[in-house]
Formats: sequence, C-alpha cells, structure tokens
Amino acid sequence: METTAIITTEQLLKHWQGHRQVTRKLIEKFPEQDLFNFTIGGMRPFSEMAMELLSIAVPSLKEFTSDTPGTYQHLEGISTKQQILDLWDKSTEEINQYWTQIKPERFQEMFNLFGMYNSTIMDSVFYFIENEVHHRGQGYVYLRALGIEPPFFWERD
Amino acid sequence: METTAIITTEQLLKHWQGHRQVTRKLIEKFPEQDLFNFTIGGMRPFSEMAMELLSIAVPSLKEFTSDTPGTYQHLEGISTKQQILDLWDKSTEEINQYWTQIKPERFQEMFNLFGMYNSTIMDSVFYFIENEVHHRGQGYVYLRALGIEPPFFWERD
Repeated sequence: METTAIITTEQLLKHWQGHRQVTRKLIEKFPEQDLFNFTIGGMRPFSEMAMELLSIAVPSLKEFTSDTPGTYQHLEGISTKQQILDLWDKSTEEINQYWTQIKPERFQEMFNLFGMYNSTIMDSVFYFIENEVHHRGQGYVYLRALGIEPPFFWERD
Repeated sequence: METTAIITTEQLLKHWQGHRQVTRKLIEKFPEQDLFNFTIGGMRPFSEMAMELLSIAVPSLKEFTSDTPGTYQHLEGISTKQQILDLWDKSTEEINQYWTQIKPERFQEMFNLFGMYNSTIMDSVFYFIENEVHHRGQGYVYLRALGIEPPFFWERD
C-alpha cells in the first residue's frame, strides 16, 4: 500500500521503546517486597505484569521475523527486581535487533501470533504497547496506594 | 513522505474509537456514587479521568482542523453518569466528523496543541489513545477494588 505514511516503522519502534523506559522506571520505584507481593482487588502483583510484558515482546518479534507462529510461554523463575530489570534491558536490545528485520509492508499482513491471535502485525504491535500502558496504569495505582510517587507518564527517555 | 503505510488514518480512527468503546463500557460498570467518589491513594475518581478524556479529544481535533492552537479547558458541571455517557456519545460522532478533515500528510507536521504540547499530530493522537488506556487501566483497579468485573480489554465494539 503506497500512500502517505502517518508514521514510520522507526518512529513506532522509538515510541514503543519510550514507553518501555517509563515502565522500567515504574519497576524501579517499587520496593522489592511490594513488586512481588502488593496487590489490589485480587489482581496480580506488578512483577507478574512485567513478566507478561517480557513474555510477549521479544517472543512476538521472533515469530514475526521467522514467520512461524509459536505458543505463548509465560516467563517464570524470577525472584528479584534486579533480575526483572536485567531481562528488561536484554529485551530492549533484542527488540531493536528484531524490529529492523520486519519489512514495512508486513505490518498490514495477517499473522496468527502465538497461534492464537490472528490480526495484522500492526494491530499486534498496538496491542503490545497498549497492553503495557494498561498494566502500567494499574502499577501507577499500586504505587499511589503505597504512597510512592510514580514516574511521569510523558518522560520517555 | 511517500512510503509504505504501516497504518492508514481510517485504521487509526477505528482503533481509537474501539478503545473509546471499552472506556464507555467501563464508565457504565461503575455504580453512580463510586464513579464520582471512589478513589485509591489520593488519585482522582474515574468521573474526573473521563472528563479529562472528553476535554482532550474533540477540542484537540478542532485545533488541528482549524490549524489554530487554543487552550486546554477541563469540562465541568457534570453530576450524573448519564451526562458523561451522553457527552461520550456526542464526542464519538464529532471525532468521526473532524477526523476526516485531517489530511494524512498533516500527521507528521508539528502542532502546538493547547498552546503547550508541541509535537507531531501523530504523537498527539498516540497521546490521546494511550492517555485513555493509562487512565482506564487505573479505572480497572478501581472496579476490581469495588469487587466489580471490568469489561474485557480486547472487546472493542
């Protein structure tokens, strides 16, 4: 589809990584115990939400670039904040690497992500970003309930 | 910028309106009293967040289409859930009308929204959507804390 681009793939990557920086700051703000234990209304602790985000990001890009649907596997076996932050930083690098292998024309193609979510790659990328913003918004409430000032929503670097 | 479009303006509008449908469902789920009074950690009740979203959406598009920065004015004077839902539906129609007046090539142009936020129109639209997802995520925690099942994140119609 040749037309006027309202956003480029490079801009979209930068936008996503900007959000990931905010989420990283949020993880850092949590006291270690609360990251793994604090919850409201029967929801998951923020550590579990962060692990979901990590379980989605790089594995999805690997599926797109190999053009092979796999299965969703929730990352486990993490018990410290530093481990999550290390995984976060490793994912940041891997996202940059895999992203450049996705040709712009593929964003409008259908792909059955995790063998379950059949949509365009663009819609899946929207999902990655917005699912992160959604859960991070929940993390903001956790921090506020703990009396901790969250990072600014608009500080993306 | 002529290139391969990874998303069209029509798709972006549909995407935003899909999110607005989820937010509308969330507003509907709140008991009237809780919509205006329930808070966690000193945050705003969800009615105030919804009014912020309404104060941003159509006024922003009016600025873009008239090419004239204005000032942010927070909508006030609302005291019932039905009033918010009515404003929501009115905005839904107005967003559709104004959106079609924004030419695709303008999304990469800078615009000083509300005379304060100088970024590309694309980045501002990302902000509208993600600010909504962010606050709605907070609304999900409020509902869970109230023992109410929120709408599904992925049901966009």
